[in-house]
Amino acid sequence: MLEINKDPDLVRDFHNIWHPCTQMKDHETVPPLIIEKGEGVFIFDREGNRYLDVISSWWVNLFGHNHPRLNAAIEDQLHKVAHVMFAGITHQPAIDLATRLVELTSPNLTRVFFSDNGSTSVEIALKMSLQYWLQTGKAKKQKMVYLQGAYHGETLGALSVCGIDMFRDKFENALMENIAVEGPDCYRCPYGLSPDSCDAECFAPMQTTLDEQQDSIAAVIVEPLVQGAAGMKMYPPVYLNKLQQACEAFNIHTIYDEVAVGFGRTGSLFVSASHGLKPTFLCLSKGITSGYLPLAATLVDEKIYQAFYDDFKTLKFFIHSHSYSANPLACACANESLRLLTEDNFLQTLKPKIELMQTCGENFSDLKVCGEYRQTGMIGAVELVQDKTTKKSFPFEQRLGYQIYLEGLKRGVFMRPLGNVVYFIPPLIISPDEIQFMMDTALECIRAVCES
Amino acid sequence: MLEINKDPDLVRDFHNIWHPCTQMKDHETVPPLIIEKGEGVFIFDREGNRYLDVISSWWVNLFGHNHPRLNAAIEDQLHKVAHVMFAGITHQPAIDLATRLVELTSPNLTRVFFSDNGSTSVEIALKMSLQYWLQTGKAKKQKMVYLQGAYHGETLGALSVCGIDMFRDKFENALMENIAVEGPDCYRCPYGLSPDSCDAECFAPMQTTLDEQQDSIAAVIVEPLVQGAAGMKMYPPVYLNKLQQACEAFNIHTIYDEVAVGFGRTGSLFVSASHGLKPTFLCLSKGITSGYLPLAATLVDEKIYQAFYDDFKTLKFFIHSHSYSANPLACACANESLRLLTEDNFLQTLKPKIELMQTCGENFSDLKVCGEYRQTGMIGAVELVQDKTTKKSFPFEQRLGYQIYLEGLKRGVFMRPLGNVVYFIPPLIISPDEIQFMMDTALECIRAVCES
Repeated sequence: MLEINKDPDLVRDFHNIWHPCTQMKDHETVPPLIIEKGEGVFIFDREGNRYLDVISSWWVNLFGHNHPRLNAAIEDQLHKVAHVMFAGITHQPAIDLATRLVELTSPNLTRVFFSDNGSTSVEIALKMSLQYWLQTGKAKKQKMVYLQGAYHGETLGALSVCGIDMFRDKFENALMENIAVEGPDCYRCPYGLSPDSCDAECFAPMQTTLDEQQDSIAAVIVEPLVQGAAGMKMYPPVYLNKLQQACEAFNIHTIYDEVAVGFGRTGSLFVSASHGLKPTFLCLSKGITSGYLPLAATLVDEKIYQAFYDDFKTLKFFIHSHSYSANPLACACANESLRLLTEDNFLQTLKPKIELMQTCGENFSDLKVCGEYRQTGMIGAVELVQDKTTKKSFPFEQRLGYQIYLEGLKRGVFMRPLGNVVYFIPPLIISPDEIQFMMDTALECIRAVCES
Repeated sequence: MLEINKDPDLVRDFHNIWHPCTQMKDHETVPPLIIEKGEGVFIFDREGNRYLDVISSWWVNLFGHNHPRLNAAIEDQLHKVAHVMFAGITHQPAIDLATRLVELTSPNLTRVFFSDNGSTSVEIALKMSLQYWLQTGKAKKQKMVYLQGAYHGETLGALSVCGIDMFRDKFENALMENIAVEGPDCYRCPYGLSPDSCDAECFAPMQTTLDEQQDSIAAVIVEPLVQGAAGMKMYPPVYLNKLQQACEAFNIHTIYDEVAVGFGRTGSLFVSASHGLKPTFLCLSKGITSGYLPLAATLVDEKIYQAFYDDFKTLKFFIHSHSYSANPLACACANESLRLLTEDNFLQTLKPKIELMQTCGENFSDLKVCGEYRQTGMIGAVELVQDKTTKKSFPFEQRLGYQIYLEGLKRGVFMRPLGNVVYFIPPLIISPDEIQFMMDTALECIRAVCES
């Protein structure tokens, strides 16, 4: 008997739903959890079993589930107007949110273009960059540069700047031809250096590419400091400083994809602003509503905006729209989430939690399969390897991460390892005790799978 | 003094927000409305002025603003869990919604893949079609066929099947090369026929294309019956019958984009189901939440699903995800909206309204600039021309539609003509009196602009 048969709703799920990024055949043996409610860092299934939401429901939740102030912000707006179109019309929640985002991000970013998810925020940046060069007499600048291991979403435009084969290899025929560049790889640094002390020597391939192809390059897109889907690969800010210098010198746009790392994940509000960087475009989503509702924003440098600002008959304006752009319910929630993030020194309260995660993380080094524990702010990751010396990876067919995930479910933590990387990106409001439980349990799960 | 200076929030809007599909310079003279609340078919600005939402806030709203049952559905779910990730996890609102969508759409559609907006629902269909052919030994089938005048969204994949130059011409370098085919054009029918009695003779170019290039074609994508962004161009179902026959004969997928026409707009719930058609993929969004929250669904034929269903190690599964897939708040709202649509013979109640719109629409023919009034269900449109005999269009620089829009604002109706096409796609709950007011006022606005 299939496992799903234990609940008629699981049967309906199995027969009617195609879940994202899931081999549905896996549900024959391991059905999905039916989650009924959430409270703080925990989600609860129908039987009342609770699971710590270790990965913040795909990296979106900041203040926990069922937060009274976020709920109230949505209810309050709901009784005014849930949604209204955003051309020819504006509304208070969007005005407040855009103004605040412009205040809190890098000073060169002056305009906010709203959409619905991370992919669309990236598509908008790509399209604005392409159109900018066409409208400013540099029509040859039409290629995008991206890093190996990069992930920027999965619509076909966003996928054309994805540096992970597994995501793109079925769709190569449909993708815009862009330029992949070898990026930082600190755990397996080919220069034998350490990210704490290096000078981003690994920037050399990027420097060469930009130098040689500057006339055909529109923009470089990066996930600053943490390449999420690549397995939470982390690299130092000096790489970004070099990128900024080079892009300024060669007249190339920079697109900062802070969809995953924005809104406090790294310990600061935004990576770009906290490091004094000046992205031409900044893409935000995920944490923007603290994991309540779909919303995204692309922030734009003033010089880009000005190249589209003209009389209507020139047709220079940016033609792009989504029906639910700047959805008032989502904007109202985002405003309250930003208040929570910026009041009472909230980001300061993360410091001891970041230290505790680091301390707990060091315990992983006892494992014979632990290649590295790495951490940036509230994002931690342990990379499992067959051999610590050669750093050889486990083959994907072994599904090590999946087995660890199953062990986690038994113990009340919901993880979702990326291949052989077990990672932690919990809601920011996680308590010290919950951090301890999360990290101890992960260690236990890894032991159960790898050392039994 | 700029008009925006009359309200400090308009200044903040002007300086911080880049509105979709808008030449921002227009806001120097005509600032956006600041909408504060909604009630039924009306939206209200800060001064309490009301505007009839003629185009349902970009074609999304079905049951009016601030609907007590939709509000209650969202509040109820809000106190359980606002959002949770949709891989490894499921929830009641998504299970109910997927099950109901499968019940209500064409019988061959058995699986629902959720995303956030119309563009992503199309991207998902395109990607599934491409991957399907790769995985079933027909790797050459990689081109999409679309109609001239087609609109399917504006992310780069969706844009690659767009048949409107203005949307795509700045981005040609970035688009997948697909195949545009001359489609129906009933108002200017090159065969001199009428859509009431023709046999879709205009299917000939499609037949030739499919016949000649069947080995390289993955799918044909269409907006059934109404090409929205093209100016509410309408065509008869016989075209779709022929398309289905041809695609079956040539082993080509059909993608039905019912993002705009689904959920009752044409008088039936879905065009494809009501005409006995069998899309391989059906894309839904906009009305799915009755205009409350961003949500989209791609429904999929069982044979597609089966080609991805296999052991994990084959890596045949569909790798695509958006963080807010199947957002529980949006799904809960969509479930209540579907109940409203399907209970108490709701669709039957549209019939007299459809007739009234038709009667009112006939008044437009008195205008010397009225080329045609056309209507499909609750979607009406009047196309304005310089000359009724030659059917010559007004030049875009004249901005006729924009002037009519401004006249509408003075009279309390919010329209947004597409070029020279003034159209009506009101919330389905609009009353007969409101229909009369909407159509009379539109007539008045056209007269004020075109006959003064």
